[in-house]
Amino acid sequence: MRIGFIGLGNMGSGMAANLVSAGHEVLAYNRSPDKVSALAERGAIPAATVAAACDADVVVTMLADDHAVEAVTFGDAGILASLQPNAVHVSASTISVALAERLTTEHAQAGQRFVSAPVFGRPDAAAAAKLFVVAAGDPGTVADLQQVFDAIGQRTFEVGQDPTVANLVKLSGNFLIASVIESLGEAMALVGKAGVDKQAYLELLTSTLFAAPAYRTYGGLLARGEFEPAGFAAHLGLKDVRLVLAAGEALEVPLPVASLLRDRFLTLLAGGGRDLDWSALGALPAWEAGGPKPGH
Amino acid sequence: MRIGFIGLGNMGSGMAANLVSAGHEVLAYNRSPDKVSALAERGAIPAATVAAACDADVVVTMLADDHAVEAVTFGDAGILASLQPNAVHVSASTISVALAERLTTEHAQAGQRFVSAPVFGRPDAAAAAKLFVVAAGDPGTVADLQQVFDAIGQRTFEVGQDPTVANLVKLSGNFLIASVIESLGEAMALVGKAGVDKQAYLELLTSTLFAAPAYRTYGGLLARGEFEPAGFAAHLGLKDVRLVLAAGEALEVPLPVASLLRDRFLTLLAGGGRDLDWSALGALPAWEAGGPKPGH
Amino acid sequence: MRIGFIGLGNMGSGMAANLVSAGHEVLAYNRSPDKVSALAERGAIPAATVAAACDADVVVTMLADDHAVEAVTFGDAGILASLQPNAVHVSASTISVALAERLTTEHAQAGQRFVSAPVFGRPDAAAAAKLFVVAAGDPGTVADLQQVFDAIGQRTFEVGQDPTVANLVKLSGNFLIASVIESLGEAMALVGKAGVDKQAYLELLTSTLFAAPAYRTYGGLLARGEFEPAGFAAHLGLKDVRLVLAAGEALEVPLPVASLLRDRFLTLLAGGGRDLDWSALGALPAWEAGGPKPGH
Amino acid sequence: MRIGFIGLGNMGSGMAANLVSAGHEVLAYNRSPDKVSALAERGAIPAATVAAACDADVVVTMLADDHAVEAVTFGDAGILASLQPNAVHVSASTISVALAERLTTEHAQAGQRFVSAPVFGRPDAAAAAKLFVVAAGDPGTVADLQQVFDAIGQRTFEVGQDPTVANLVKLSGNFLIASVIESLGEAMALVGKAGVDKQAYLELLTSTLFAAPAYRTYGGLLARGEFEPAGFAAHLGLKDVRLVLAAGEALEVPLPVASLLRDRFLTLLAGGGRDLDWSALGALPAWEAGGPKPGH
Repeated sequence: MRIGFIGLGNMGSGMAANLVSAGHEVLAYNRSPDKVSALAERGAIPAATVAAACDADVVVTMLADDHAVEAVTFGDAGILASLQPNAVHVSASTISVALAERLTTEHAQAGQRFVSAPVFGRPDAAAAAKLFVVAAGDPGTVADLQQVFDAIGQRTFEVGQDPTVANLVKLSGNFLIASVIESLGEAMALVGKAGVDKQAYLELLTSTLFAAPAYRTYGGLLARGEFEPAGFAAHLGLKDVRLVLAAGEALEVPLPVASLLRDRFLTLLAGGGRDLDWSALGALPAWEAGGPKPGH
Repeated sequence: MRIGFIGLGNMGSGMAANLVSAGHEVLAYNRSPDKVSALAERGAIPAATVAAACDADVVVTMLADDHAVEAVTFGDAGILASLQPNAVHVSASTISVALAERLTTEHAQAGQRFVSAPVFGRPDAAAAAKLFVVAAGDPGTVADLQQVFDAIGQRTFEVGQDPTVANLVKLSGNFLIASVIESLGEAMALVGKAGVDKQAYLELLTSTLFAAPAYRTYGGLLARGEFEPAGFAAHLGLKDVRLVLAAGEALEVPLPVASLLRDRFLTLLAGGGRDLDWSALGALPAWEAGGPKPGH
Repeated sequence: MRIGFIGLGNMGSGMAANLVSAGHEVLAYNRSPDKVSALAERGAIPAATVAAACDADVVVTMLADDHAVEAVTFGDAGILASLQPNAVHVSASTISVALAERLTTEHAQAGQRFVSAPVFGRPDAAAAAKLFVVAAGDPGTVADLQQVFDAIGQRTFEVGQDPTVANLVKLSGNFLIASVIESLGEAMALVGKAGVDKQAYLELLTSTLFAAPAYRTYGGLLARGEFEPAGFAAHLGLKDVRLVLAAGEALEVPLPVASLLRDRFLTLLAGGGRDLDWSALGALPAWEAGGPKPGH
Repeated sequence: MRIGFIGLGNMGSGMAANLVSAGHEVLAYNRSPDKVSALAERGAIPAATVAAACDADVVVTMLADDHAVEAVTFGDAGILASLQPNAVHVSASTISVALAERLTTEHAQAGQRFVSAPVFGRPDAAAAAKLFVVAAGDPGTVADLQQVFDAIGQRTFEVGQDPTVANLVKLSGNFLIASVIESLGEAMALVGKAGVDKQAYLELLTSTLFAAPAYRTYGGLLARGEFEPAGFAAHLGLKDVRLVLAAGEALEVPLPVASLLRDRFLTLLAGGGRDLDWSALGALPAWEAGGPKPGH
């Protein structure tokens, strides 16, 4: 397949490389072009502009937030204006449900196809093609994209025909991860203040009821107090919680744990933790209990 | 070993049966004697009183709460008065850190040994000898008890020499389970209101980042709205959250998620849900979002 | 003075009428023109368009939310395009800090003056010229407007030279009112369930430490369960809490009570309470404690 | 009247002095006797023991917490054992609803009368006989005590025949004060970070919708950051919130703001603020927003 790939950050560079390795022709675009050269060495074709990257059957966007996706999609030389009729825009970014709704509508009006396919996994999983892909959109289109998803992930979950549902599910997943961080942070603050070793405690949890990657990954970072470098920065965590809350507001669903997480992220940012890994949120309960500030 | 076993409820009857099966001589006592007869048929020796059950090397208590443990331990014919010097009281109940502290002190003063060994697992795990045992106390004594723990559980975690630490760890584990119920409940209220199938959603979660028994068990109950009969009743969940908060207060550790859980349990009880499974707590977010009241 | 007045809702119609009574020449505009006729009978000059209302020294906007203010301000025939150089736009609406910032900048670029002057008070206070005006902007301009503020309010507070500060203070005031409603609601749920008469309880509170209009007004509505007709509708309360939270996010200030209020408003809306008075939020604690749903 | 007065702390010494001034014969008892001498100089009769102070028509207790009241009431030489039949025990302390219930029952069984009469007001109000008395009990008995209440307070509110109701109302009042501190703390953190002067902000609030003593007193302490010496210490504030939550649990009333306050007090104590004035709780939002820790 001929695939335009837009956004070569921590996540996107690994994903694009895996598409190349799987034998696809990849037109790679990034706002700062140095990332493109690295990928070109691995066999990708550099695209100088978004429009150039749209000379493809499929255009994947993997960008940091709504603004970045809007910037490459709308406007005179954006994806909407440049994509061929019947080509597919695959949005893998974690964006708002509202923007996914707008993309769905506008691509349809332009005779183009749109699929939401956000992913679960941190940069190491992206590099190892071990992501989980959450896809929603027209079933035929999703089927056509299976080889793309197989190249970047270990499993694809189809969650519906309405693309926005994939974004909601992805956001809810990030919410669940952040709530694991918070709950573990509270539990570790409690047992830690009683003298229990945090690593041994985590080993107990992850050998029993909580034997899941989310607990191992984030519990490990938390037990070791290892918040730099960030796999996923705190300010992006705040963004995602904000999007979850916005989705909850649109659907009239109160989410008290998400509200708590929002306040936690603001505390973290106000304390200078903007660029720490979002797991640093889980160090706030110990800070409130008299311990050190995360990252200090 | 000769083992007195006090408390033959949902959990205790399975545990005592497994001790019998493992070849131990079990003196079984329960406040209401009908439970004793059932166990006697499987080979246990009925004990008519607590004191009678104390004619043993080890006395295990597995009771619902602090009051029940206090009732069989203190007083003229209680465990403290009846246990032989150097015999061991093993408290497997989920009790307060404060009571564990008192038991530690008073047994030591009486020249008796005391080990805290609360367990993780629901009644089916107790029946199948698949519990996880969290033990704390004098290392030699804990080692002596290994065959007891092996008979009832699949693995033992030693968490320290101070028995109270095991109770704190156990309570923190119940707190973590309840916070999984709450977070999953919020996430399901959100995606459910957007039309996502809850079972498929849970399948996605438990195939990926949240592939852990806590998510499977409680997520399943939640997705099916299956809150009766209770494996662990809501009012017991409230009790445990109260004990977690009390431990947090003693250690000066604020626990905002535990505070939320406490309010949730009160809402559940005020709505008539006292005897529902504690996973019904996770149906409250959907109720607040306009859905039906759990259990109605 | 010649004053354009845009927005003749519950609040604006009383304010505009008071400006007429004080002898000002009032050019009155409203999206639905029937409100204009009523005011014209009292001496106002009907303005058929926003632009027509801008043929004045001062243009006051008193509208429901950001969107309404944006609709009349920006665009070809909006206030920015129509206002005379050196004339003043006075924004009395409760709008976001972000929009106030934009208005400040764009009016300055157009050589026009801008003052934020949101008000405290419900429709009866607006009709009686008993509002409290919170003004911020260039001191000379605010001084020029004193006769306008005197005509609509009982007192003006100047809170700074940066107009956005007035909006922040106004929003924080609405936050404080909503938190009074919540706290009173919790207290009344508690003492009410013990059989204490709510009116007598409120009388005690407002005769002692809480002898303030906010407690009398909202406590009274709450004690009587009188949520219709709305003086200020729940969905507008939600809007204001959202703006408070947005301001807190921009300043990196976590606001846990505001987060709780947001969740409360969503619960109220999900339960069908969109158009109830926002004091209905205070009936939710009693609902959670087993009582009736507000408005049912 | 002949009045035993037990407990000469910050509050009690002022109250007892006012009873002396009003012409009553006051038998004064305090655990540490130096406080007694000071009062004896003003005309009180020193009582060497609790029993000696019970040689009276009325015995007033004004102590810090449940434990202190239990210590002087129960036991061989306590109030219950020493008080004359038909004499009245007036409990003015802020105690739990549960203890008030026990006192009601046990005094009734002893043929003694019991009235709950907790008070609102800080030490300066106690000294100035400006307290508000919240009384509940047998109406005839409360009527007999009116001269006692008049000597210590500016107004008495009768809230019911069941003494425990007065305790619940008093606790709910302290909850409302603490929630004012929290809400004001959040609002001040928000506007303060935008550069608004806190004193001017408070002046605006207390001149308008929040013109109440609770806002003036606690807002003033907060705006000035004046947390020492404590009029009412943080650890006592925590105690009262704990009692409110316990009352809520007994009545099955979730109280999310009280839960937040509990967490706040724990944070304050964990940070070394145990003996600061409880208004220091309101400095925590600014601390979370990047500001200094209260009391540091």
